Amino acid sequence: MLNKVHLGILGLGTVGSGVVSILQQNAQDIQTRTEYEIIIKRVLVLNPKEPQKITGDFELTDKADDILLDPEIDIIIEVIGGIEPARSFILKALHNGKHVITANKDLLALHGQELLQVAKEEGKDLFFEASVAGGIPIIAAMKQSLAANRISQIIGIINGTTNYILTAMADQGRDYQEVLAEAQKLGYAEADPTSDVEGLDAARKLAILASIAFNSRITLSDVYVEGISKITRDDLLYAAELGSTIKLLAIGKHQDEGIEIRVHPAIIPKTHPLASVSGVFNAIYIVGNAIGETMFYGRGAGSLPTGSAVVSDLMQVIRNIQTKSSAAINCSCYLDLPIKTSSEFFTSFYIRLLVIDEPKVLATLALLFAEANISFASIIQKPRENKEAEIVLVTHPCREGQLQEALDSVRAYSKVLNIKNVIRFETDSQ
Amino acid sequence: MLNKVHLGILGLGTVGSGVVSILQQNAQDIQTRTEYEIIIKRVLVLNPKEPQKITGDFELTDKADDILLDPEIDIIIEVIGGIEPARSFILKALHNGKHVITANKDLLALHGQELLQVAKEEGKDLFFEASVAGGIPIIAAMKQSLAANRISQIIGIINGTTNYILTAMADQGRDYQEVLAEAQKLGYAEADPTSDVEGLDAARKLAILASIAFNSRITLSDVYVEGISKITRDDLLYAAELGSTIKLLAIGKHQDEGIEIRVHPAIIPKTHPLASVSGVFNAIYIVGNAIGETMFYGRGAGSLPTGSAVVSDLMQVIRNIQTKSSAAINCSCYLDLPIKTSSEFFTSFYIRLLVIDEPKVLATLALLFAEANISFASIIQKPRENKEAEIVLVTHPCREGQLQEALDSVRAYSKVLNIKNVIRFETDSQ
Repeated sequence: MLNKVHLGILGLGTVGSGVVSILQQNAQDIQTRTEYEIIIKRVLVLNPKEPQKITGDFELTDKADDILLDPEIDIIIEVIGGIEPARSFILKALHNGKHVITANKDLLALHGQELLQVAKEEGKDLFFEASVAGGIPIIAAMKQSLAANRISQIIGIINGTTNYILTAMADQGRDYQEVLAEAQKLGYAEADPTSDVEGLDAARKLAILASIAFNSRITLSDVYVEGISKITRDDLLYAAELGSTIKLLAIGKHQDEGIEIRVHPAIIPKTHPLASVSGVFNAIYIVGNAIGETMFYGRGAGSLPTGSAVVSDLMQVIRNIQTKSSAAINCSCYLDLPIKTSSEFFTSFYIRLLVIDEPKVLATLALLFAEANISFASIIQKPRENKEAEIVLVTHPCREGQLQEALDSVRAYSKVLNIKNVIRFETDSQ
Repeated sequence: MLNKVHLGILGLGTVGSGVVSILQQNAQDIQTRTEYEIIIKRVLVLNPKEPQKITGDFELTDKADDILLDPEIDIIIEVIGGIEPARSFILKALHNGKHVITANKDLLALHGQELLQVAKEEGKDLFFEASVAGGIPIIAAMKQSLAANRISQIIGIINGTTNYILTAMADQGRDYQEVLAEAQKLGYAEADPTSDVEGLDAARKLAILASIAFNSRITLSDVYVEGISKITRDDLLYAAELGSTIKLLAIGKHQDEGIEIRVHPAIIPKTHPLASVSGVFNAIYIVGNAIGETMFYGRGAGSLPTGSAVVSDLMQVIRNIQTKSSAAINCSCYLDLPIKTSSEFFTSFYIRLLVIDEPKVLATLALLFAEANISFASIIQKPRENKEAEIVLVTHPCREGQLQEALDSVRAYSKVLNIKNVIRFETDSQ
């Protein structure tokens, strides 16, 4: 007779209904692959009397304890999101001997260490592949398939909303506000898009990814964050002129002096593997000292892709139950690496200025930058109305502290009317 | 005190020396991550007296039994390649209670089933991530991270030599023979390049990948194979004119009527995720019913990338030893799906013809194709010398049997001087 495993699911929203749908649709394959019959016993919803996104042979409840304290339930899937009560539910589940799978990036970015510690003490699995870039199995890849490597870089396009907006702006030469409004209409951006467009969502995911990549605990507050709301159509046109495009990148670099951990718009050459990642797709580019460059590409969100990550985690939890090897890979932060401040970041910069179109202005600018020890890799100058000119300066790589010094002098220079934008480059593969 | 695990390595060539190098260079991290001290005890080489690619604190031997029968050795890494004696060595190792990691695609494509069966009987792990697309952790991804999915398509660029050649031909408008010669000089192609350029290497890897993707045993002889040696500079120019490029694709599709399994040059739109995979890089594109489209990209060969796959497998074998859960995932071929013959393949075609440039020729061609129920999606016609014209016909999707029928009529048509090339399209994402 087939072994049975009993599930409790907390939440039946987008991800929860995806999980149920996959378990129903692929039931036969999943059963054959795991050699277990998976029974969804109870699902926590706000109002069990209301119609739900999906139906099935399971009980609905609005009392979490019906699930968390049910001795028959072996595994809990937490897909309600947010910090509380998700955190308390997961802790209670672990303390009551249940394995946990969660898709909750907010919670992990803040309380990952605590939760993994409790899972370890209780000898239970706590899996969270779905928390970052839903359809891309990046966490398992780093913990297992790339385990032989020292990872030096992880660079991701891990927010679909901003990538949709930047792709549309670049491809169609449209403005930020217009594309954002369209994305909201299509459901790719929230009514309040702040968390996405200002980079916070990507920062949370980066904190999780970089902790695993570099074996050192990184929390949300460690991440330098800048969003895309200041990127204009003109910036994208100049980027194209430079053979490049602009993406919101989540960047982690492990360098001799410490870790650079930052989310911001970045100009990347069109030849970079990340440059062709379009629309709502996500991708994560990793450099390891054995594997070299590698990239994982897929859907970062959505009911079924995220559900796929949850159910694949579930199948691994079941395998571990079967072989009595739960909790084999949990917290992997055995280092405590220093985090670099933004003044120590080392990149090239794109600086777009509006200046008075007079002789010597460019020469003076060059001098001001030279005083901060910064030289230019390329310069674009275009005439504008009223005897003004727009200048785009591309610097050679420098420390960000140097750049701020130079920008202070530039701001004080009377021929400069406006520093329209400053954008970092991400150029080096390897 | 730290647990110890003893290794024997069969072969110290490109991959073997990569494995040793990673174990030396990343020793501290690997030890912390596995909580085991890894001791390379003995390495099998042809001549232990000669200098080797890499040195270390291990014993060289030319007697396989010194390794296969050594009771202290827990894990064998087979990186000699070829069918025999590799097969016998692996079987002997398994029968003598050793876990095995191999990078041997030739062997697995032929004898995978036998070896996995023996591993299962002996309760040992037999891992082979390195056998396909070295630096891309695709096997673990399919067996674990995508396990919740029914995979409907797997399409790979999994031969670096041919991708290098086609990329150079496309980017530089050069001819096949010239680029092949250059690739041989640079070490990207063998002196006898047949196995790469005629698609055999990709077919072996595809047999392994598709067996795992579709849970049905597929061997080399099941794969329809066509190489790139007939692709010309002109074909690449026409492909570019069609907004596309040409890649040697390894294609597996699980359809209602059975499995399509084929390696051949294919025209793909420049917007396809695989189109921008350049040079010696490899990539594998997968469509699953939950995850949608996903792609894995990286180096497909080389000492360190392949070594990375071997050592990451090794770390998993060690974790399994530690948790006493070896042999948990082995052969996953629980289905026995029919394989479609090439006449049943269903694609669009590019057909390049040299014809006599007279009125009605195009109309007659259209009729000949219409008789086989094939219509055109687009047509390019260019004048050539001597009142000849070159015509490129792009068909709507049809069965390959229909196309062969039409081509028979075309061949018999006196105004057609030459069917210069016929190339399949791979257009549908999803």
